[in-house]
Amino acid sequence: MNLLLERKSIRRFTNKEITKEDITKMLKAAMQAPSAHNQQPWEFIVVDDRELLDKLSLASTGAWMLKNVNVAIVPLLLPTDKSPHFAIQDLSAATQNILLEATNLGIGSCWIGAYPLDERVKHIEKVLNITGNIHPFSMIALGYPKDSKETILRYDKSRIHYNKRGE
Amino acid sequence: MNLLLERKSIRRFTNKEITKEDITKMLKAAMQAPSAHNQQPWEFIVVDDRELLDKLSLASTGAWMLKNVNVAIVPLLLPTDKSPHFAIQDLSAATQNILLEATNLGIGSCWIGAYPLDERVKHIEKVLNITGNIHPFSMIALGYPKDSKETILRYDKSRIHYNKRGE
Repeated sequence: MNLLLERKSIRRFTNKEITKEDITKMLKAAMQAPSAHNQQPWEFIVVDDRELLDKLSLASTGAWMLKNVNVAIVPLLLPTDKSPHFAIQDLSAATQNILLEATNLGIGSCWIGAYPLDERVKHIEKVLNITGNIHPFSMIALGYPKDSKETILRYDKSRIHYNKRGE
Repeated sequence: MNLLLERKSIRRFTNKEITKEDITKMLKAAMQAPSAHNQQPWEFIVVDDRELLDKLSLASTGAWMLKNVNVAIVPLLLPTDKSPHFAIQDLSAATQNILLEATNLGIGSCWIGAYPLDERVKHIEKVLNITGNIHPFSMIALGYPKDSKETILRYDKSRIHYNKRGE
């Protein structure tokens, strides 16, 4: 089975540290994502400070697992003149590439959505000192999985149409 | 080099047909993407009708290469109650998975953005008979690459911060 099928959300982690080399590999994968007009409207904050991770875990109810990881990556959405309407899609592809490279390295991950939810975005901005026209897009919890988790295939033929949707 | 680094936009294709088996593999990868609350707010139209592909190539200036492919996949954005604010991100991850599985299979691909640009969305809806609360999200041109294209690594250290963005 390939890594596209194997990726799953992991929320329970061991204490094992992720190497800097592996963090770099994930960031390389992120920046290789496609973006509209190749604008690459992104930056990334690597968070490995215990206090900051604990504060980030309070950004939403679904962010609790940040209390239990040693590192997270927070992709940032940059302003772009050329195709601002596609910037969310660019950042999503970059986030997905991080999850997939993590899977490739045996690292578990969980995509915690932030943008465009104002309350989450403002909380993260405050914790990570993000100001101006730049906004946190998501938070990615990273660590080695505590338990093995079954792969559930979500393929559903009824979602596929040929040439036209309607009847 | 892994497939996350190898993926690139391909716009010139040979006439070689893509097998149905490979199309299914790409759709399996698409539906394995993460989605907020596992809502999977997607469907997919496989377009292999010459007349429809030609019409879709007129959706935007960047869609011209659909004239030169035998097949395209059009992911559709479905309404979802639970996390509508994240549906674009879900569809982006699904689209990215299609591009990556294509790369994995030696197939070239190009992500043509549509949603939320009204003019493009309406054009595609008309061609593919998409009605109601369902909207085309993107179009993915698929085919075997005509030329080999160099991989340009976009990794840029200056885009990385540690723990705080600040000045």
